[in-house]
Amino acid sequence: MKGKTIAELKVGDSAFVEKTIAEGDVYLYAGITGDLNPAHVNKVEAENGIFKRQVAHGMLTAGLISAVLGMYLPGPGTIYLGQNLKFTAPVYFGDTIRATATVTELREEKNICILSTICTNQDGKTVIEGAATVKPPKE
Amino acid sequence: MKGKTIAELKVGDSAFVEKTIAEGDVYLYAGITGDLNPAHVNKVEAENGIFKRQVAHGMLTAGLISAVLGMYLPGPGTIYLGQNLKFTAPVYFGDTIRATATVTELREEKNICILSTICTNQDGKTVIEGAATVKPPKE
Amino acid sequence: MKGKTIAELKVGDSAFVEKTIAEGDVYLYAGITGDLNPAHVNKVEAENGIFKRQVAHGMLTAGLISAVLGMYLPGPGTIYLGQNLKFTAPVYFGDTIRATATVTELREEKNICILSTICTNQDGKTVIEGAATVKPPKE
Amino acid sequence: MKGKTIAELKVGDSAFVEKTIAEGDVYLYAGITGDLNPAHVNKVEAENGIFKRQVAHGMLTAGLISAVLGMYLPGPGTIYLGQNLKFTAPVYFGDTIRATATVTELREEKNICILSTICTNQDGKTVIEGAATVKPPKE
Repeated sequence: MKGKTIAELKVGDSAFVEKTIAEGDVYLYAGITGDLNPAHVNKVEAENGIFKRQVAHGMLTAGLISAVLGMYLPGPGTIYLGQNLKFTAPVYFGDTIRATATVTELREEKNICILSTICTNQDGKTVIEGAATVKPPKE
Repeated sequence: MKGKTIAELKVGDSAFVEKTIAEGDVYLYAGITGDLNPAHVNKVEAENGIFKRQVAHGMLTAGLISAVLGMYLPGPGTIYLGQNLKFTAPVYFGDTIRATATVTELREEKNICILSTICTNQDGKTVIEGAATVKPPKE
Repeated sequence: MKGKTIAELKVGDSAFVEKTIAEGDVYLYAGITGDLNPAHVNKVEAENGIFKRQVAHGMLTAGLISAVLGMYLPGPGTIYLGQNLKFTAPVYFGDTIRATATVTELREEKNICILSTICTNQDGKTVIEGAATVKPPKE
Repeated sequence: MKGKTIAELKVGDSAFVEKTIAEGDVYLYAGITGDLNPAHVNKVEAENGIFKRQVAHGMLTAGLISAVLGMYLPGPGTIYLGQNLKFTAPVYFGDTIRATATVTELREEKNICILSTICTNQDGKTVIEGAATVKPPKE
């Protein structure tokens, strides 16, 4: 259960995870974080709002990026230093999101790896884009 | 249940939410996102790892930032455009995290508000720092 | 994060919370409380029962009353002494419930506040009515 | 899966359910109901509060009363008409609560059953007392 060291990574390496964001996920996430924004937990308010339906928390979807980094690329042992996120489209209940991370830069002397991180829905639409900065595990 | 419009906001406005991050939160979050990184869900691996104990997902803690933005400042109706995050220290099970958002810039012509976003633990140590970009609700 | 003291309350003060009661909420609640009554968790039995569909636990909906008291009126620091509940109509999965608390009596010498507590659905129908007895926070 | 009809009940009939209220239950319940009162979800605030530790939501514990009524006495098919609750002592994380219902009155002509409802902790201390009004299932 050890991820790749920086010596084992190369620019262009890519991995993804994919998960449906269910209504129940959104309600649980609301409880964990305390984010009871009516856009997420109030059907009536959400239908009168800008997205016309309840949407998942953007930060919940962003959690799939953490999953791909910590589990697959670089994988276990990785230290998450930073993440930039742009929320480019809403995620509706039942959407299936793919979070893809691709190595874009390796700073071997500092043991730092930069990855582009993109989340897309089942229609291929980008819902989050951004970049992650991580320290891969050491040997 | 409507947040503040850009005309009602001013630079320096600040709000926070605070919540203890319990073991149960971390396990639920792992299930919701699929982020089963052993640093979070495997006690044995975590104790042999760099933090010597299980830690919460950084992105889970970041969810408290979403809570303060969507519930209090600007509040309901806010559209989350982007978030930068630096994970500066680990969050352990049972830590009580305060996420504080402070308005730093208002671009009224584009209805855009920038906020500094900082998460601190019960000892006042900063665990996440960064900035959020949002569209406050319109009248 | 401190609620209103009895000196800051007056008869007629009112606050509400509103939340959609999702299927997932009902299943989680069943697990937490052990209330696996087939009216709530068994679709086949429920469809053959008096309400013709699965209904949320009345006591789950009543939890929204606790939310408005503990978070908004009087708010944090409030001690919940008692609650009377009449369940006047069923709550179906997906109903959006508003729990409203209104101060009806203040007994300042004993630091006791009585509130009427009503839950209504998205059609304005009353699903729970009753009264709460609380001790507001002291200074 | 049918409970007892009024003809099958007699005054003095009693049943109970028992469950440990775990930390995770409290956090989930907070999410379901939106009741993020710091007494329940904020360790630091709770330790500075009147109970000196985090406590479970009183209404969560009350859910065990619903469980005993809907599952055992009278059991499936029961319609819950009303509940009076007095919260007499706090419930701490890890407490094991027994909710006991005892038939105190039967109004056969209206098909109404009144039960005393008491919740006690593992030390035998009463944490909730009150009474329930239900309609037992018909044949």
